[in-house]
This record gives sequence, structure tokens and C-alpha cells, in this order.
Amino acid sequence: MITFYYNAAPNPMKIALFLEEAGLAYDPVPIDTRRGQQHAPAFRAINPNGKVPVITDGEATVFDSNAILLYLAEKTGRFLPPEGPGRRGELLSWLMFVASGVGPFSGQAVHFRNFAPEKVPYALKRYDFEARRHWQILEDRLSAAPYMLGDTYTIVDMSVWGWASRLSYMLGDDRIMESYPNIDRLMCEIDARPAAERAQALAKSHAFKVAFDDEAMRALYPQIFAPDPA
Amino acid sequence: MITFYYNAAPNPMKIALFLEEAGLAYDPVPIDTRRGQQHAPAFRAINPNGKVPVITDGEATVFDSNAILLYLAEKTGRFLPPEGPGRRGELLSWLMFVASGVGPFSGQAVHFRNFAPEKVPYALKRYDFEARRHWQILEDRLSAAPYMLGDTYTIVDMSVWGWASRLSYMLGDDRIMESYPNIDRLMCEIDARPAAERAQALAKSHAFKVAFDDEAMRALYPQIFAPDPA
Repeated sequence: MITFYYNAAPNPMKIALFLEEAGLAYDPVPIDTRRGQQHAPAFRAINPNGKVPVITDGEATVFDSNAILLYLAEKTGRFLPPEGPGRRGELLSWLMFVASGVGPFSGQAVHFRNFAPEKVPYALKRYDFEARRHWQILEDRLSAAPYMLGDTYTIVDMSVWGWASRLSYMLGDDRIMESYPNIDRLMCEIDARPAAERAQALAKSHAFKVAFDDEAMRALYPQIFAPDPA
Repeated sequence: MITFYYNAAPNPMKIALFLEEAGLAYDPVPIDTRRGQQHAPAFRAINPNGKVPVITDGEATVFDSNAILLYLAEKTGRFLPPEGPGRRGELLSWLMFVASGVGPFSGQAVHFRNFAPEKVPYALKRYDFEARRHWQILEDRLSAAPYMLGDTYTIVDMSVWGWASRLSYMLGDDRIMESYPNIDRLMCEIDARPAAERAQALAKSHAFKVAFDDEAMRALYPQIFAPDPA
């Protein structure tokens, strides 16, 4: 049985989507990051990075959402592209583009727009630009084919889905999806899948702390309270 | 024959190290990013993200350094952990920890310390803190075993090696390795390998542009010249 440590943020939701799509049995364990539960020693022992999602699966512990997607896809043989020349390279390239580019730059855009303790114009500009640049590359890709890897719905689409729901919040633009019609098309298609509905229901099934108070800020953004660097 | 598009930065150097360690034949193609060669249409056709490294290998095109490391390790069966319960999950987790955490946060620390057009105290603080937090997790891991995945030198060690040479530059601290004695141990061990010497020789074999002039700034940090976001 898989144990799934999660909250309702974009990265854990990708894993909820996969688990539901594949029909895998799992035991969901909520980790309330606004209460600092990610820093508890028992949790840090399974993920030293103190973040969700994490899964345990027999003797395996897997952390980082894209590592878990690839692990589960390989374990089940599901939601991978068809075999063929160049296919493995294409899968790994686009999964890593989301993991090392789309995710981190989207996260920085969210931070400086919504959570930084002061308005920092250059950081806002840098991350707004870089987030849009990355999302435009996804849009261009999806304008040429139904899914990120062509005609097959794969873990790369699931990884994009995790973050796409936060685009307006990330960029401060309620009409942002008008700029990304092909991302919007794919996200609506995935949202309508029963597995996505079950993933969203999981997110709502636990009363995660809502207040963004001092405890939450210290748990999520400890650098705000750290001394200035040399 | 593999074609390897590269410059002397940390991410391409990881791939040079692997290619040399594995003794794979390859054709190196320098991409001078300070001259904007990464934005040429012919290059963007193979990597829409406009970055190095990229490899082509028959019908495969692979971009993103950690995607390439995993692709080449799987292709050759080299520099992977031994088979065993939990081993695949451990490999994917730590490779993604470097890809989605160590790399992006190290890159932001370098940017705000060395290249941002103005001094931004909160951004410096955030990325100094997050870079150190990630490197401390690597240090803790390497204090318990010779290599990132235990007793075997793998692609995760190569991925750490790429960035570790820039730590003092990243954090503005010439004595930073005194804080990370186990990272220092492993980096010295890898640096002494003949493959690492050949990778460094490759980096020096092409006269990449040195000047960090207006052309370089526009090619590497286009957001500086973009309009302010809404």
C-alpha cells in the first residue's frame, strides 16, 4: 500500500491525480504546512527537504512531485508515451523542463507577487517575465499537438496541470488564460476527468489551516526571519 | 554519434563529465550564450527553452542537464545505483532534489549577488538562505555515506559537482567549503578523476566570449530590458 503525504498545493495535487487516474490504492496523510508539520522530525526523516508530496511504497520512499510521477509511471507502465525512437529523451526533457523551469519560476512569481514582506519591483519583473516565458513555451508546444508529448496523455500533462490552476494568481491577471488558449483547452479537459474530480475532493476532505498568520509565515518562509547575509 | 551543445557553465559541465566518464564518442558544439547563440532559430528548434546543454543522439533530442544525465545513464547502464528495493525511488528523488531545488535556488542566488542591475536586499536574503538550506541537506547526506546514493558514484554526484564549484561565487564567501567538509571531500575526489580533467579541458578549448557587455546582458537576462509587469 502506498502512503501519500500531501496538502492541497499544486505539487501534491499532481500525485493525487496520478494515483486516481491509475486506480492505485493509497493511504492519504495530510501534512499541514501552515502549522509547520513538514518540519517535524518524523517527517524530515522521510523527506529531508521538508516538503510535500512524498510517497512511501514498501521499501521505497520518493519525494519531489516529478520524481514521484516518473516512479509511479514506471511502476505501473501507465501514462508514458508509446515506445519509439527518441521517445524517452522527449519524455525526460519535458518533464525536467517543468521540474527545473516551470515549477521553480512559477513559485518565485507567486512568492514575490503574494507573499514577500515588501514590494520588490525588480524581482516582480524578473519572475513575471520568466514565468510567462516558460508558460509560452508550453502554449507553443500545445498549439502543435493535443498533449505535451503528442497524441498521448502522460505524466508531463499531469505535471503541467498542477501549476496551471494558479496562473492568474501567479501573474495577477484574471484573464491570463486568454493568452494561453491551448493550455486552457488541456486544463479544461483534465479538470473534467473523474480522476481530477477525485483529486480535488481529496484536497477538500481535510480541514487544512487557512490563516496565513505568523506561524504559517515562519513555517513556509523562514528566510524572512533570518539574519541578513554577509 | 552524440552531438553535445555546450558552454563552460555548471549544467553543461555535468554532461561533459558523464560523456568522459563513460567514454562515449561525441561531437562538441560550443554555444556562446554571451553572444546570444542560444536564441538562434536553428538552436531553438532543438531546445525551445534556449539553453545549454542539449544532446542529439540519433533520433533523440534531449535537453536539461538532469534529463540528459538520466537518459545517458539509462542508455549505457552506467553510473546508476545497484539494483535493489527502494533504489529507483532514491535515485529519482535525489536527482530531482538537485534539478528542482539546488539548481534553481543556486541560480537565483548567483543572479541577485552578481548580475541583478540593482542591490535587492530581500531577494539576496531569500536566495542566500534557500541556497544554504539546500547545500546543507547535501552536506548532511554526504556526512553519512561516501556518495549521494551510498557506496556508488552515480549521476547524482555528477549533478552536484556541476554546481559545487560555484559555491563561493554564489554565496560571496571564499571560505564556504569549510562549512561543507563532506561536499568538499566529494568534489575534490571528482575533480581528481581523469574524466573531470578532460571535461575542464573541453571547457577551455573554445574561446567563449568573456565580456559581460550589453549584448551579453540582453541575451542572458532579457527581463532587465522588458517593460514593468502590471
